[in-house]
Order: sequence, then structure tokens, then C-alpha cells
Amino acid sequence: MAEDNAPYVQQIPEIIVLGPPVVFKRYEKEFSLKFRILRPWESTLSLSEFLLAHAQNTKAALCSGTFSLSAAILDCLPSLRFVVTTSAGLNHIDLPECRRRHISVANASTIFSADVADLAVGLLLDVMRKISAGNRFVKNGLWPKSGDYLLGFKLGGKKVGIVGLGSIGIEIARRLEAFGCIISYHSREKKSFVPYPFYTDIRELAAVSDVLVLCCALTKQTHHLINREVLLALGKEGLIVNIARGAIIDEKELVQCLQQGLIAGAGLDVFEIEPHVPQALFTLENVVLSPHSAVFTEESFGDLYELMSDNLEAFFSNKPLLSPVLHDQS
Amino acid sequence: MAEDNAPYVQQIPEIIVLGPPVVFKRYEKEFSLKFRILRPWESTLSLSEFLLAHAQNTKAALCSGTFSLSAAILDCLPSLRFVVTTSAGLNHIDLPECRRRHISVANASTIFSADVADLAVGLLLDVMRKISAGNRFVKNGLWPKSGDYLLGFKLGGKKVGIVGLGSIGIEIARRLEAFGCIISYHSREKKSFVPYPFYTDIRELAAVSDVLVLCCALTKQTHHLINREVLLALGKEGLIVNIARGAIIDEKELVQCLQQGLIAGAGLDVFEIEPHVPQALFTLENVVLSPHSAVFTEESFGDLYELMSDNLEAFFSNKPLLSPVLHDQS
Repeated sequence: MAEDNAPYVQQIPEIIVLGPPVVFKRYEKEFSLKFRILRPWESTLSLSEFLLAHAQNTKAALCSGTFSLSAAILDCLPSLRFVVTTSAGLNHIDLPECRRRHISVANASTIFSADVADLAVGLLLDVMRKISAGNRFVKNGLWPKSGDYLLGFKLGGKKVGIVGLGSIGIEIARRLEAFGCIISYHSREKKSFVPYPFYTDIRELAAVSDVLVLCCALTKQTHHLINREVLLALGKEGLIVNIARGAIIDEKELVQCLQQGLIAGAGLDVFEIEPHVPQALFTLENVVLSPHSAVFTEESFGDLYELMSDNLEAFFSNKPLLSPVLHDQS
Repeated sequence: MAEDNAPYVQQIPEIIVLGPPVVFKRYEKEFSLKFRILRPWESTLSLSEFLLAHAQNTKAALCSGTFSLSAAILDCLPSLRFVVTTSAGLNHIDLPECRRRHISVANASTIFSADVADLAVGLLLDVMRKISAGNRFVKNGLWPKSGDYLLGFKLGGKKVGIVGLGSIGIEIARRLEAFGCIISYHSREKKSFVPYPFYTDIRELAAVSDVLVLCCALTKQTHHLINREVLLALGKEGLIVNIARGAIIDEKELVQCLQQGLIAGAGLDVFEIEPHVPQALFTLENVVLSPHSAVFTEESFGDLYELMSDNLEAFFSNKPLLSPVLHDQS
């Protein structure tokens, strides 16, 4: 078989894998059948040394959602013309530099929107109904000793402010409406296709909300959008859920507000410097922590493998990309 | 004040509190302003001794959802004409005996349906998306050491079989439809007002379902309805959520099936002999346990206090009960 395929193998296009992303580790065999893979993490060389030694002719990259694709890295990849990232978010990629260098970029598009929305609702349910804490209570054998458990809070009738009403925000709103929640939102601009009240001022939205759910992109404008002032406006009975990016919240202020009871609780899938989570959060019963796993489902990883692979094949055969976010016009 | 009210105090009707229910402990002051309370748990006498000594003329009882109101207890309460229970379920009350003795019964009606449905969805989300397990992973400091977390499962497209399509089942279906789940159900009889496929045979429903959610009443017919055969039909990738009553599942068989990987996981709020939970479940990562807290929200307990109190006042003033389940016709 190997000999029969030898001439074909020569034509397999080469890609550099940066990260590497979880979907690559999971579908490495499948990717390897379609592409010749450069694996910098297996080398003893530093990343830039590896790129300068082995990737000077490499045209395409598969990049994880946490790998920082900076101008310095791009300098080491002079032939790069295409990057596909396994995330929906693009904050880790220097897009202006990609544009300047005529590098097209594709992403995971909306493939994860439903999963991320599911986890957002799951975290909110967990914080409000004390599910993780109750599980710990039972598994530690405390039920027979301590008797009746603590009361939680009812979802129905709660005012939920959604921050960023993109494809994920819409999915979250749809789910929470089924629980009887009342939806408002803050976004760059008012959306004509939804009936929910729109707030231009995030502090005003926080002040009228029982819960804030963050699902906007991390940009210069949204960095530390949720500062102490917004948290204080949310108030002592307010909850916050973040399934977007850690740096949208000023994490130090969040930890302080939680410790001092200035807000009531939080469900957090993302953090400012992952995988490092402020230790002060570990002991708070009203905080549920999740290891940036909002997109982690078997089903979506299958879909993601297909999308990443199809984008790469489209690039190499000069066909339209399936999920372009930046298309080189040159 | 006490003197002014003295003649009125004499007229306050007397109730016996059995359990005592959580809502009584929470609203004891409010109940005490409206009723003269008999508190058997504060006495050194045994319950039957207490009843025989102090409750021979007591006409009404407030009864928790776990207190077994048997014929033997009723024998000690010869003047009893009304029982109001803080639960929706009635499996703890000997209804035929109440009927025979002309005792009216009222319950919590549908006051908790939304909360119970919320917890059912919360447990399912937790099991499918490994929320409690992920929280433990982060709080134990494992994320920086172990790296990427395990994949969970996507809710969208999953076939969910609802067992018992009463007010709770309907609320669960409505919520899960917003997540893209596909609903079927098993019930005593087909419901004309829902579009979901109906299965007369629980084993057939299990065989076509990815998830079974139990929300039926515990009766002679539903006792151990979920036996080994049904669990095997649900299969190795199947999940089960129980927010109804523990004895609807054959718990020993469930534990075995979970230990042997014959089903994929479970979210359990109820158990056969509460508060005792099989220890074998404590170490299973794919099992989320909850201390019978499906109804435990601040908001619903406020509503429940009103309903219990209003039922008792209606009884004492010969007005129609607010949530009767058994009305004495004599």
C-alpha cells in the first residue's frame, strides 16, 4: 500500500499545526492522511528556530484558539497564505498583520454556538440551583448528617442581560426564554430582528439585571468591559456567567466582589490567564468553575474536524473557503 | 398586645405539624401567628404517645413530603379531617385510609413544576457537559497539570424520553425543545394536547432514547418501573435523570449498570431510602447526585407557605380548598 501511494504522498499539501489544538490531537490520524503535518511541539528546537528551519515554504496553518499568532511568529512564516483557527474567537490572531501580509483567515464559525449556549445555561442553572455544591454535599456523605440542603433560586422571572447578541447570544436567549427568563441585551449595535430591550450602556443593563451572561468577542473595546463599577451595578443579588473570554472581566475586581459578597455568585468557563485560575475562587461555594470547555463535545469536534479539513482542502485547491473571516483580496 | 389579643388567641385553630417540613422551619413564625402548633419532634414522648396525649381533638395536619402518614398514625388522630402536604407527590400518604376516614387532602399542586423541571434540565446538562466534574477538576488545581479537559456530549439532536407527562414533564419538554432535543414520552395514557410520540411500552421508549427523564408519580404501577431490562434497553450510551421518586428505579440494578458501564451516566435527585445514597455512586464521575432539592428555591418556598397557609385557613373557615386532591364528600 505504501509503495502504491508513494507518488500521491508526494503531492499531499503541507500544513503547520500551531498549538496544537485539541481537535488535532483527536483527529491526528485523519489529518495526517490528508496533509503532511509539521509538528513544532515534537522538536527540541524553539518554535521560531523550528519555523525558520522547516516552515519557510509552508503555505497553511492550523492554529488553536489559544495560540498567539503574532507578527513575530508571522515573520518566521514568510510563505504563509492561510490560517484556519479552531475557535470562533479571533483575539489570538493579529488580523491587521494577516491582512497586510495577504494571509486569509478562517475560523470555526458558528459550529460551537449551540454547545457554548448550552454550557452558559448549564453554568447558570448550576450557580442558581447549587448543583455542583449539592453533588459535593451528597458525595461527601453530608446529607444524613446535615439534613435538608440550602435553598437555591428560581430561574423563572429572572432578568437576564446578555452581553453580545451574536449567534451564541441568540441561542442563550432562546434557551432562557423557555425557562421563563426575561431577556435584555447590550451589543455594539441594536439588532432589528429581536424583540429584546437594547441597552447601549453596560452599567445600565447590569443595574436592571439579575444575571449578566457574557458572550461577546474580546476586542480592545470589550477588554475589562465588566469592571468594578459594572459589578457594583449588578449588585449583591446579581450573578455573572462568562463563556466568552476571561479578559472581558477585570478578574481581580471580580474576585474581590465575590469575596466581599458584593455580587452573589458566578459561573466561569474562561479566565484572564488560562489555565491559571485565581485560587481565591476555589473555596467559594457560590462560584462554579469550568476549564474553558464550552465547546468540548464529541459531536462538535467531529463537525470541527470536517470544517477545518474542508477549509484547508478548499485553500489548497483554490476553491472558496467555507468559513472565511479575512479573505486576501490580492 | 398579648393581653389585648388574648381572646383572639384562644380562637386560633390548632394544627399538628408532621415531619416537620422545610417550609415550616422556614416560616415557623408566620405559621405560629395564624395557628396553634403542635410540635411532636420537640417532645420526649414517642410520636404515637405524643399524638395520644395531645392531638385527640386536632382537626388539621401540615405534613412534609417524606413523613409516612400511615393508618397507624391516623389511628392516633381520631379527630383529623384535613391533611395538607408540602409535596406534589402523595405516595407517603395512605389515601384510601384518608378517604375511608373522611379526611380531605390537599397538596403543593403545580407550585414546584417549573423548579423541578429546571433541576431536571440542570442535572442533564451537568451529566452531559461534565459541569460538576469540571468544577472539581479546576478547584482541585488539576487544569495546569492535566491540560485539556474531557469532551462531553451535545444536547441538540438527542432523543429524550420523558416518563410521566404531567405538569413537570410538560415543562421539561418545553425547555429541552429549546436545546434542540427530540421529545417522546411514556405515560398512563396518550395526551391529545402534545405533538410528541407516545410509547405505551417503557422498554420501547428506552430503546429509542438517548436519555430517560423520570417525572411520574410513584404508585404501585411505577414502583421499580425502571428495572434492569429497561436500563439495558437504554444502553451503553444512555443517560437517566430522576427527579421523581427514588423507588421508580430499581436502585440496586441502577448502581450495577452504572458500575459496569451498561448505561453511560445518571443525574439523580431522589433515592430509594433517603437520605441514604448508595456509596458506590460517590466515586462515579459520570453520576451527579442532588439531595432531593428539586423544589428548593427561595421563591417557591414563599409561594408554598402561602398555599399551605391558605389551604389551612380555607379548611377552618369551611371554604373550598385551594389545591385539593381528595375531598371528603360526607
